[in-house]
Amino acid sequence: MSTGKINVSVENIFPLIKKFLYNDHEIFLRELVSNATDATLKLKHLTSIGEAKVEYGNPIIEVKIDKEAKKLHIIDQGLGMTAEEVEKYINQVAFSGAEEFLEKYKDSAKDSGIIGHFGLGFYSAFMVAEKVEIITKSFKDEQAAHWTCDGSPEFTLETSDKTSRGTEIILHIAEDSLEFLEEYKIRELLTKYNKFMPIPIKFGTRKETLPKPEDAPEDFVAETNEVDNIINNPTPAWTKLPTDLTDEDYKSFYHELYPMQFEEPLFNIHLNVDYPFNLTGILYFPKLSNDMQMQKDKIQMYQNQVFVTDNVEGIVPEFLGMLKGVIDSPDIPLNVSRSGLQADSNVKKISNYITRKVADKLKGLFNENREDFEKKWNDIKIVLEYGMLSEPKFYEKAGDFVLYPSVDDKYYTLAELKEAITQNQTDKNGKLVVLYASNKDTQHGYVEIAKEKGYEVLFLDSPIVSHLIQKLESDNENLTFVRVDSDHIDKLIQKEETQISKLSEDEATNLKTVLEEIVPKTNYSVQLEPMDSNAAPFMITQPEFMRRMKEMSQTGGGGMFGMGNFPEMYNLVVNTNSELATTILNTSDKSAQESLVKQALDLAKISQGLLKGEELTAFVKRSFELIK
Amino acid sequence: MSTGKINVSVENIFPLIKKFLYNDHEIFLRELVSNATDATLKLKHLTSIGEAKVEYGNPIIEVKIDKEAKKLHIIDQGLGMTAEEVEKYINQVAFSGAEEFLEKYKDSAKDSGIIGHFGLGFYSAFMVAEKVEIITKSFKDEQAAHWTCDGSPEFTLETSDKTSRGTEIILHIAEDSLEFLEEYKIRELLTKYNKFMPIPIKFGTRKETLPKPEDAPEDFVAETNEVDNIINNPTPAWTKLPTDLTDEDYKSFYHELYPMQFEEPLFNIHLNVDYPFNLTGILYFPKLSNDMQMQKDKIQMYQNQVFVTDNVEGIVPEFLGMLKGVIDSPDIPLNVSRSGLQADSNVKKISNYITRKVADKLKGLFNENREDFEKKWNDIKIVLEYGMLSEPKFYEKAGDFVLYPSVDDKYYTLAELKEAITQNQTDKNGKLVVLYASNKDTQHGYVEIAKEKGYEVLFLDSPIVSHLIQKLESDNENLTFVRVDSDHIDKLIQKEETQISKLSEDEATNLKTVLEEIVPKTNYSVQLEPMDSNAAPFMITQPEFMRRMKEMSQTGGGGMFGMGNFPEMYNLVVNTNSELATTILNTSDKSAQESLVKQALDLAKISQGLLKGEELTAFVKRSFELIK
Repeated sequence: MSTGKINVSVENIFPLIKKFLYNDHEIFLRELVSNATDATLKLKHLTSIGEAKVEYGNPIIEVKIDKEAKKLHIIDQGLGMTAEEVEKYINQVAFSGAEEFLEKYKDSAKDSGIIGHFGLGFYSAFMVAEKVEIITKSFKDEQAAHWTCDGSPEFTLETSDKTSRGTEIILHIAEDSLEFLEEYKIRELLTKYNKFMPIPIKFGTRKETLPKPEDAPEDFVAETNEVDNIINNPTPAWTKLPTDLTDEDYKSFYHELYPMQFEEPLFNIHLNVDYPFNLTGILYFPKLSNDMQMQKDKIQMYQNQVFVTDNVEGIVPEFLGMLKGVIDSPDIPLNVSRSGLQADSNVKKISNYITRKVADKLKGLFNENREDFEKKWNDIKIVLEYGMLSEPKFYEKAGDFVLYPSVDDKYYTLAELKEAITQNQTDKNGKLVVLYASNKDTQHGYVEIAKEKGYEVLFLDSPIVSHLIQKLESDNENLTFVRVDSDHIDKLIQKEETQISKLSEDEATNLKTVLEEIVPKTNYSVQLEPMDSNAAPFMITQPEFMRRMKEMSQTGGGGMFGMGNFPEMYNLVVNTNSELATTILNTSDKSAQESLVKQALDLAKISQGLLKGEELTAFVKRSFELIK
Repeated sequence: MSTGKINVSVENIFPLIKKFLYNDHEIFLRELVSNATDATLKLKHLTSIGEAKVEYGNPIIEVKIDKEAKKLHIIDQGLGMTAEEVEKYINQVAFSGAEEFLEKYKDSAKDSGIIGHFGLGFYSAFMVAEKVEIITKSFKDEQAAHWTCDGSPEFTLETSDKTSRGTEIILHIAEDSLEFLEEYKIRELLTKYNKFMPIPIKFGTRKETLPKPEDAPEDFVAETNEVDNIINNPTPAWTKLPTDLTDEDYKSFYHELYPMQFEEPLFNIHLNVDYPFNLTGILYFPKLSNDMQMQKDKIQMYQNQVFVTDNVEGIVPEFLGMLKGVIDSPDIPLNVSRSGLQADSNVKKISNYITRKVADKLKGLFNENREDFEKKWNDIKIVLEYGMLSEPKFYEKAGDFVLYPSVDDKYYTLAELKEAITQNQTDKNGKLVVLYASNKDTQHGYVEIAKEKGYEVLFLDSPIVSHLIQKLESDNENLTFVRVDSDHIDKLIQKEETQISKLSEDEATNLKTVLEEIVPKTNYSVQLEPMDSNAAPFMITQPEFMRRMKEMSQTGGGGMFGMGNFPEMYNLVVNTNSELATTILNTSDKSAQESLVKQALDLAKISQGLLKGEELTAFVKRSFELIK
C-alpha cells in the first residue's frame, strides 16, 4: 500500500473551469468586480478599527475597455497586495482570501458587508482571457508587484512602479471571447450583476452640462464637463431603514429595478430581519397586467448586493411569485440542489417569514385605509386567493383582509358577508346561500332577477374561484355558494312559501309534452316552474355542482377525474305562470306553436350567450322580419 | 523578477468544483456513467482492432445503492486500469484520459462513438461523496488496484483481489447529499441523462414470469425469475437508418421519449448528416394541444447519446420550437455563451440544415398524399405560418405546401387560390380581393352574404394571421385581403355596376338625420348603402385597416405604435333599399321610430357579438314582450 498527494496540475485546471461553466462565461466580470469590492470593503474595515493607518477616502472601482489592444481593465483602490500576498492568494489557486480574512476579524467584520462568498473566482478570468496581469500596491508601505500568467502554469512576478494603492487586473481577451471588448456587452453585464454593489463603479465618462450662471447673457452657451460615468447605485433602497424612505423613494427604486416598466406598483413590503437569519429586501405588488414586460420582470435575489439569480423558486412562497422586487440574504445556500434547498432550515424560515410579513402588511393596509385597499382589490386578489389555497398559514390570516365584492362594488369580509345576508338568504333548511356571478355581461339577466328579490350577488371572476369556494364551503358549516344562473331563483334559495301554478296538472303535463317535442333533448332538460308572472318565460340554467367540478378539473387539480371533458348540460326553465306559457298551450296551429317555442328558446339562449353561427344568423333574419 | 509554477492545492479544488456547479450537483452520476461507458467503448474498439486480446462479450454497467452503508456503486466491465494508470489518470486531477486516447487512436476511433467530452468529470463525485473508492482491474494481465480518497489531498493506493475486468467506483455519500441514496432519485437521474446511452445500464432487478408450458395442468402456478432491470435503450431510433425503421418504430420511439404523452405525433423528420457537420435526430410534428404535458415535452439535445439539455434555443430555428424529438450532435459547442453559439459556423449550418429538411419533408408529404396533408393542416399551420414570417429561406419554399382553407374546408395553395378567384373577385381597379373570416361563429352572417354572391371566403384563424396577410400583400402585387365584416359586400369587392337606391336624395338625407339622432356617435358612423332589398337592413362593419393594425400591435411587433389601445370604431351600414328603411322613414311617431331603430341596431349588434349585459337583458325582455 502506498499513499501520496493528489497532484492538481494547472495544465488541467483551466479546461476544468471552462468545462463546468458551460454557458456562464459571463460571470467572470461579476467575480472580478466582487473581488475589487471585497478589497475595498476590507480596507474600509481595517481603517475603521485602526489596523490600517491610511486615509480611506472615497474609493471607486473602474472598468475600462482597451479595444485596440484587446484588453479589459478592472481597477480598484482597495487594500492591494504585497508580492508575498500575491504568492499566497493568487499562486495558490482557489485559496479563499476572504474566508481567511473573515476568520481573523470575525467579530468586527460581521457587519462590514464583506462579500466573502465570491472571493474564489479570480481564476474565472481565464475563461475569457489568454493572459492575465495583476498590478497591485498594498496599503502597507511596500513596493508594488506585477504578476503575469498566460494560462500555462508558468507565471512571472516582478516589481512595478505603480504608486497608487489598490489592484489593477488586466485581461488580454482571447480570440473566442472578443464580445467582451464590446461596450454594450460590458455595460449589460455590469448592469445585470453589479447594479447595486456597495462601491461606485466607473465605466467610461459622460458629458455633463454645467449650470447656467444667474447673470448669464441671452446668448450664453452652457459649458460641458467630462464626468465619471458611475453605473451602479451603491446604496439601493433595500439597504436603508424603512423609516428613512418615503413612498416616492420606494416607487423610484421600483423603476430603478425595472427600467422598462412604466406602471406604478400598488404598494411595497420592506423586509428586514437580522435573526435567526439575515434578510433584507423590498417586495412590490404590481398592477395586474398582461404585458410581456411585466412577466419578464421577476423578483431578483442578491447576496450582499451582488445579483445572483432571478429564480427564487423554493425561497419565495409560490403564491408570491407574481410579486416584483428584491431579496438579499447571505443565508441562502447557493450550491445545493432544489431538494437540498427545500430541506434547508434557513430557507424554510425565510419563506415562512415572507408569508407572514406579506399577511401583516395586507392586514395593516386594510385597517389603515379600507377604501384604498378595496380599490386595489382587483389587482391583488389573484395572489391572495392563490395564497389561501396553497399556504395554510396564509389562509389562517386571510379572514382579516380578504374581500368578497358584490356586483355593485360593495366589499365584504367573509364575516361581514355572513352577517349581511343571514336574514334574507338563509334557506328553509338553515343553509346560508351565497349567490355569485362570474361574468357581469353574460349573467346580467340572472343577476337582475336575484337583485329584484333583494338578494346580494357577489362578483367572483378569478380563474381559481371554483377551488376557493369549494374550500370555503368545507371550512364553514352551513355555507353554500351558487352561481346565479345555476337554477331558477326560487330554487337557489328555497323558502317556505310556494308559488301557485296558474296551470292545472293536466295543462302542465300537456305543456311539457309540447316543449319536449320541440326542444332538443341532448342538451336541455325541460323544467316547469310556477314563477312570478312577470318573470322571464324561458330561462336556461346550468346546475352548480357539475359546472363547478368541470371548472375545477379544467383549472388543474381537484374536481372529479375526467370531468373536464363532460358535455355541457343545461336546464330549460319554463315559467308556467307567464303569458307566453299560456299562449303556447293555446296555439293550436302546430307550426305556429313550434316557431313560438323556437323563438323563445333562442331568446333564452341569447341570454346565456349560447346562440351562435347559423342559428344566430337565422334568428337575426327572423327578427328583422318581425319588425319590418 | 521571479518565475514559478502556480500551485493548485487539493484543499482548494473541491470548494472550487462545488462552487461552480451551483444547483447542478446531480450531474455527477452522468459523469461517472459516461466514464464507465467510455471505458467499455474503448475496450470494444481495442478488441476490434486486435490491440486487446480479450473477449469483449456483452458488457453492462451496473448502478447499485447500498442504503444502509450509505454507498452508491457504479460498476463497469470496460478496459479497467492498472495501478500505474490510476496514478496517471486519477491522481492528476482533470487529466483527460479520453482525449489522450482519441489522440493516439485518432483514425480508427473516429466512428466508435467514444464519448470523450465527458472524460473530465470523475472529480464531480466529490460534490456528493465524502469518500470515494476505485477498485479496478485492467484488461491487461495485472493485479487489480484499490484507490481511496476522502476528499483531502491524501489518497491511498493498494492492491485488490478483484478478479473480473473493469472498474467499480464506490461513493460514500455525504450527509448533505443523502437524497442520492434514494432509489427514486437515482432512477430519475439515470432516466434523465442516460436513457439512451450505448451500453446497457442495470439498476436493480425485477421479477419476470416464466412462460407457461404447453402441457401445463390447470392449477399450474407460473414461476418467476429475477432478471436484470436494464433502464436504458442502447440503440434508440435516431441511431438507426431511416430505411430500417417503420412508421410504428417512429411512433413507439416518440412514446419512449415522452412516456407521459398519449397523443400520436402527426409525422416525423429523420435528420442524418455526416458532412460538413455530424448530426442525427428525429423531429416530430405533434398534434396541437393545450395540455401542460405537451408544453413540458421539449426537443432534447444529446451528444453521443448522452442527454445534455432541453434548451435548444439558437440551434433549432425558433419557429420549430414547438416540435418534439431529439437531436444528437458532437459538433455543437457546449461551453460557449448564447452569442458565441450564434456566431459558431457549425451551429448556423445545423440550424439551416434543419430548416431545409423540414421544408423538404413538408413538400414531400404534400405531394405524396395531399388529402392527408390537408387533414393535418390545422395542427401544423401555426408552425408553418410563423416560419414564413421569421425565416426567409422557409418563406421561399412555403409556396409549395402552405395552404389557405376556405370556410367550407376547401384547401388552396396561394397559386391555386389566385387562379380560382381571379374571375369573380377582381375589382374594378384590377385588384384581386381575398375575403376571409377569422371566426365562423361570430362572422357567420357576413360569410353567408359573401357566399350568396358566389365569393370564396377563407378561414384564417391563427393569432398571427394579420402579420401573415400583411406580408403576402406586400410580396404579391395587386393582392389584397379583407375580412368579411370589414365593409358592406359591394364595397369590399367593387364592381362596375351600381345599385340604384329606392330612396330619393332628400329621403336619404332625412333617414341619415333620423338615424344619427338615435345611434350613439362615439362608436358608430352611419353609412347608407343601396343594397339588394332582401339584404340585412342594418349591419355593423369594422374597417380592415384599423382592425388589422390593432391586431398586429396586440400580437407583438408590427402595426402602428400605440394602435393596440385605440378604441374600437364601427360603421353602421343601413340598406336604403330594405323595407325597414322605408318603414323607419314613414313612422311619424317619434317614440315608435326610436324603438324601431333601437331594435334594429340591437339585432345588428347581436350579429357581431356586440350586445352585452344590461343592453342584452333589455333586448331579451323586449323581445319576449313582442311574442307573448
